Amino acid sequence: MAHNEVALAERPVPEPGPRDVVVRTTASMMCASDVHNLSGAMAVPVGRVLGHESVGIVSRVGDAVTRVREGERVAVTSVTPCGCCDFCQSGAPQQCGGGVGGYKFTTQQDGSLAEYFVVPDADFNVARIPDELTDEQALYATDSMSTGLAAAEQANIPLGGTVAVFAQGAVGLSVTAGARLLGAGTVITTATRPLNARLSAQFGSDLVINPRHEDAINKIRDVVGQHGVDCAIEALGTHETFEQAVRATKAGGTVVNAGYHGWQATGPLPIPLVSFGFGMGGKTIRAMLCPGGSERLQRLFRLMVNKRIDPTPMTTHRFGFGDAAKAFDLLASRADGIIKPLITY
Amino acid sequence: MAHNEVALAERPVPEPGPRDVVVRTTASMMCASDVHNLSGAMAVPVGRVLGHESVGIVSRVGDAVTRVREGERVAVTSVTPCGCCDFCQSGAPQQCGGGVGGYKFTTQQDGSLAEYFVVPDADFNVARIPDELTDEQALYATDSMSTGLAAAEQANIPLGGTVAVFAQGAVGLSVTAGARLLGAGTVITTATRPLNARLSAQFGSDLVINPRHEDAINKIRDVVGQHGVDCAIEALGTHETFEQAVRATKAGGTVVNAGYHGWQATGPLPIPLVSFGFGMGGKTIRAMLCPGGSERLQRLFRLMVNKRIDPTPMTTHRFGFGDAAKAFDLLASRADGIIKPLITY
Amino acid sequence: MAHNEVALAERPVPEPGPRDVVVRTTASMMCASDVHNLSGAMAVPVGRVLGHESVGIVSRVGDAVTRVREGERVAVTSVTPCGCCDFCQSGAPQQCGGGVGGYKFTTQQDGSLAEYFVVPDADFNVARIPDELTDEQALYATDSMSTGLAAAEQANIPLGGTVAVFAQGAVGLSVTAGARLLGAGTVITTATRPLNARLSAQFGSDLVINPRHEDAINKIRDVVGQHGVDCAIEALGTHETFEQAVRATKAGGTVVNAGYHGWQATGPLPIPLVSFGFGMGGKTIRAMLCPGGSERLQRLFRLMVNKRIDPTPMTTHRFGFGDAAKAFDLLASRADGIIKPLITY
Amino acid sequence: MAHNEVALAERPVPEPGPRDVVVRTTASMMCASDVHNLSGAMAVPVGRVLGHESVGIVSRVGDAVTRVREGERVAVTSVTPCGCCDFCQSGAPQQCGGGVGGYKFTTQQDGSLAEYFVVPDADFNVARIPDELTDEQALYATDSMSTGLAAAEQANIPLGGTVAVFAQGAVGLSVTAGARLLGAGTVITTATRPLNARLSAQFGSDLVINPRHEDAINKIRDVVGQHGVDCAIEALGTHETFEQAVRATKAGGTVVNAGYHGWQATGPLPIPLVSFGFGMGGKTIRAMLCPGGSERLQRLFRLMVNKRIDPTPMTTHRFGFGDAAKAFDLLASRADGIIKPLITY
Repeated sequence: MAHNEVALAERPVPEPGPRDVVVRTTASMMCASDVHNLSGAMAVPVGRVLGHESVGIVSRVGDAVTRVREGERVAVTSVTPCGCCDFCQSGAPQQCGGGVGGYKFTTQQDGSLAEYFVVPDADFNVARIPDELTDEQALYATDSMSTGLAAAEQANIPLGGTVAVFAQGAVGLSVTAGARLLGAGTVITTATRPLNARLSAQFGSDLVINPRHEDAINKIRDVVGQHGVDCAIEALGTHETFEQAVRATKAGGTVVNAGYHGWQATGPLPIPLVSFGFGMGGKTIRAMLCPGGSERLQRLFRLMVNKRIDPTPMTTHRFGFGDAAKAFDLLASRADGIIKPLITY
Repeated sequence: MAHNEVALAERPVPEPGPRDVVVRTTASMMCASDVHNLSGAMAVPVGRVLGHESVGIVSRVGDAVTRVREGERVAVTSVTPCGCCDFCQSGAPQQCGGGVGGYKFTTQQDGSLAEYFVVPDADFNVARIPDELTDEQALYATDSMSTGLAAAEQANIPLGGTVAVFAQGAVGLSVTAGARLLGAGTVITTATRPLNARLSAQFGSDLVINPRHEDAINKIRDVVGQHGVDCAIEALGTHETFEQAVRATKAGGTVVNAGYHGWQATGPLPIPLVSFGFGMGGKTIRAMLCPGGSERLQRLFRLMVNKRIDPTPMTTHRFGFGDAAKAFDLLASRADGIIKPLITY
Repeated sequence: MAHNEVALAERPVPEPGPRDVVVRTTASMMCASDVHNLSGAMAVPVGRVLGHESVGIVSRVGDAVTRVREGERVAVTSVTPCGCCDFCQSGAPQQCGGGVGGYKFTTQQDGSLAEYFVVPDADFNVARIPDELTDEQALYATDSMSTGLAAAEQANIPLGGTVAVFAQGAVGLSVTAGARLLGAGTVITTATRPLNARLSAQFGSDLVINPRHEDAINKIRDVVGQHGVDCAIEALGTHETFEQAVRATKAGGTVVNAGYHGWQATGPLPIPLVSFGFGMGGKTIRAMLCPGGSERLQRLFRLMVNKRIDPTPMTTHRFGFGDAAKAFDLLASRADGIIKPLITY
Repeated sequence: MAHNEVALAERPVPEPGPRDVVVRTTASMMCASDVHNLSGAMAVPVGRVLGHESVGIVSRVGDAVTRVREGERVAVTSVTPCGCCDFCQSGAPQQCGGGVGGYKFTTQQDGSLAEYFVVPDADFNVARIPDELTDEQALYATDSMSTGLAAAEQANIPLGGTVAVFAQGAVGLSVTAGARLLGAGTVITTATRPLNARLSAQFGSDLVINPRHEDAINKIRDVVGQHGVDCAIEALGTHETFEQAVRATKAGGTVVNAGYHGWQATGPLPIPLVSFGFGMGGKTIRAMLCPGGSERLQRLFRLMVNKRIDPTPMTTHRFGFGDAAKAFDLLASRADGIIKPLITY
């Protein structure tokens, strides 16, 4: 199997280290990041298992694990911090060990798109799934919905404030839902694909702009006033959407970058100078990664159990594990209106 | 008097509007921003009085002013918010009315480098100078020291954390002092000019790097470890120092931009992608402007009265008002080791 | 008219000072605080006009007012900070001038339950009412709904977190709505009166407890676990509900006090020691007052225009101005299921 | 050995569990909490080893420990969170497992005042001591100095703001040093014992009040104005100092409770109503416990290595381990001017 190919591979069932558990997978989702990993921006060794969105049944438990038990039905966050290092202790567990280091599946160890997978530091990263939730619902809490909600959480949205979200893929749609959950007074989104636009409205957007047909910045200013929105979130990972997010935001406002800018890396990310007040405009720009940890999983589960949010309309495709490569190809080509594919085992 | 020339001009003593006071100036300082204003990045009409760092005696008081009295010896912040608009009410008074709008002297009205000047919204922006302080000390609280301290305040410095400050002009030196005042455990600075380097150590730098002789990033990593500092502050306004600040900061850390990037504007401000974790590195970048307001002035005065900070070693030159143009030329050419020139009337 | 009596009084139409406007009232609401003012806890001189929840048409504009115009249909916050003093500049405008000083209507000047009333510092405190909103809706943004929302904002609710609200009067019901608007995963409330209990569920409570029939703390722990809720809000102003709020909150959680404890003042407010971890339990207790200011009013208006919240089911009674004393008596006796009475002119 | 007696006991060298390390103690300090534990407020079983401030050499390492090595010279925080539970993951590691649960030495397991002791969750709680620091210095970072600094960190001190600290024992003195490290403009303290008063000035107090000779509140108001200080910290654990801290604080300010209120528990902790604005005064009261974790230890070590703080003047007495009971008696009786006793092995 050469680089840049995806294939099924036969592997032995893994053994857990003392802080690990092994999970027998019952369902997975795929993520644009899996595609990005293949594009070469992050170094992934040949033969590495992909995937970081899986749920299943705990099959083996490491000797030092105290909070997880064999046979439990669990979800695992896509980002799996150790909980102990300087980064974890100082409020940046996503950066565990440094430099996006909390993102371990695929980049530091085999991923979870497999019949069995190892969860590092399981006491930190594994949460039981409540009986009220399906595997499909729980999967959204492991990555894409959690990322979008976290972007909204970091956007410092004033109660009744104005928010713009650039792009409405799985993360962007979750930002939209998150902005509504967190009290935004007006939410404006951009989407080009028809299904994404429809879901955007369904998830809480007050106005969905198609940036191919309208100038998004002008339209946003028409609605919220010339100074722009309180908060803007970039959810695609292009220079263009990043610049728009900075330009759409009022002086003193917050820009959150939720997109991954590695897949088409073309030089530094550009901050437009005039919109940035030549460095004096009081704007804050935050780069972020999906949070990890069981405590967060439980809170997101509660949001679904108590009907605050339903991410399942984003599941556009369903495959058996044997057809995972097809799901991968669809995601890579963004064909057939795909948003999230569900893989069952 | 044509554009790009500085000259003394004869003017009538101004009248205060209902919310204004008129101050008879006793001392002023000049600032690199005055030079920048002349460079054309911000539109300044011909004939506009320069300057925004002045202290003096209240000479006339508008009818609606309730907190300032004729004859008081006062300082005025360089940024003069109205206190009432949406920006002022929502925690961004520097952006009063939108887009760096709190910076009114010179850009929206005559500046304060004059024998008399008008202070808008005086109830918000004027504070009595305690008897213990000289005019010279009080002037530092109006802009350069306040800006540097504010940059340190926004850097989210953990107690005992590590801080890098790029450039050690009047603002950068004040950042250094501020980082120490706010509990930094290690402060590393860069300075090229000998006096600035000496003052940097005196103001609290644990290590002053001359970036012409050493690679600043490498040196910083030697001292604090490969992950970099908790916080970095850019205090010059160049693409290079901005990029270095981002690169010097650890994942999850904070970068504050205190420099003005208009004077040599050459396209967007570049965020280096790898250091930014391709958008996932958890870094926060904050652009800022000097805070305004009498309440802050009083706190900065207290720091000087109680000997927490002494900015006066930064006063390298002294001129009478008649020689203000000479001070301006020195600042523009950065000649003779100038940091801050004091102008007396 | 002696102390502790409410009566209609004939007065001249007031003149505005330079920073004031005079509003011709079109609608008012009454508040439990009006009753409290009469109970003697705060010193109110005989003859003082009551009321602090009114909307109307701007009738006269002071000379130094720049942001409000004659003839505009406006709302005025119940708390009217100056925007300039040390308290206002340092993030505590409710405490304008010190000690609950932002609460000026009735305590420092005539209230707004009158055909005409003076608004101090009008540039800060007056906002136009959008055409989409009725007077009744706008009135909720001036005090009771705003107070409840602010309590929720200060409760530091984690996304998907658990919240308990003690008492469901107009403020408590607004806390409930606010907890939902701000992403609470579970909201539990206590209410004794049937209408309040029904509205509580309608406004977003997942479980309404009648504390006369069940032990609220036990019931809360049954639902959220023995450690208690992330946040609890006291919305009545009794020792008992305050103690319950502290006890219901988990270690490290936040307690917000939204109730006024003056009307039955019986010694210091008691923090239960064991629940407080003998001072080591990491709990935060915040006392608060309704925020003032036009910027907030606009955000609350946006929440209503965009259908995020509808407070009008709390309007249980309607009176003409001539019958205001009846409304007052009903409120004082808490009779006839009264929550909020609307007064029209 | 009956309850309420302290004695030396012979024990086997303990075995570490998989996440633990065993440390051979080289030095310890004693703390007022050890005395409190004996007073019966917290249930401590007979035979339990006391102590939670120790440093030493790592002697045995559990199988799942990855960040600590045998033979390292280390310090251990007095509070030892697991790093994994819901409390640890949500920013309250001191409350690990609930209800002050991070405080494990003595209350949940044997303490560290012993020739060998077990550290739970060693990857989280153990840090190497830099060569530049003595055992004595490192000990201060494990509890008393760390607690005092944490109280200052939670006090939300504005740069140049005013701070009052009630009581100047080891924790209170550290609060004083912390307030200075964090930019306080004026620090006022109360102390009754002469040595503590002298050290208070040495550690940064601008004014030391003897509350036996002067009314502390009146004196504070004389200095900072009638509204009181921005922040007050209670560092003794009595009703009286708590009430004073609330009264000394201005409306909108912050009160931090650093003292332990169990040792003389006499009913609920009283919040004075008038100073609390009857619940509307905008004050925040925070209860806290010493933070745990290696990352914090490292930052506090840096403060000492780089000469920002020197806690060693608080070491008033030195004993060999065989005389530990004498140290205990001195602490219990507060005799001979004792502040901190150092125990060597």
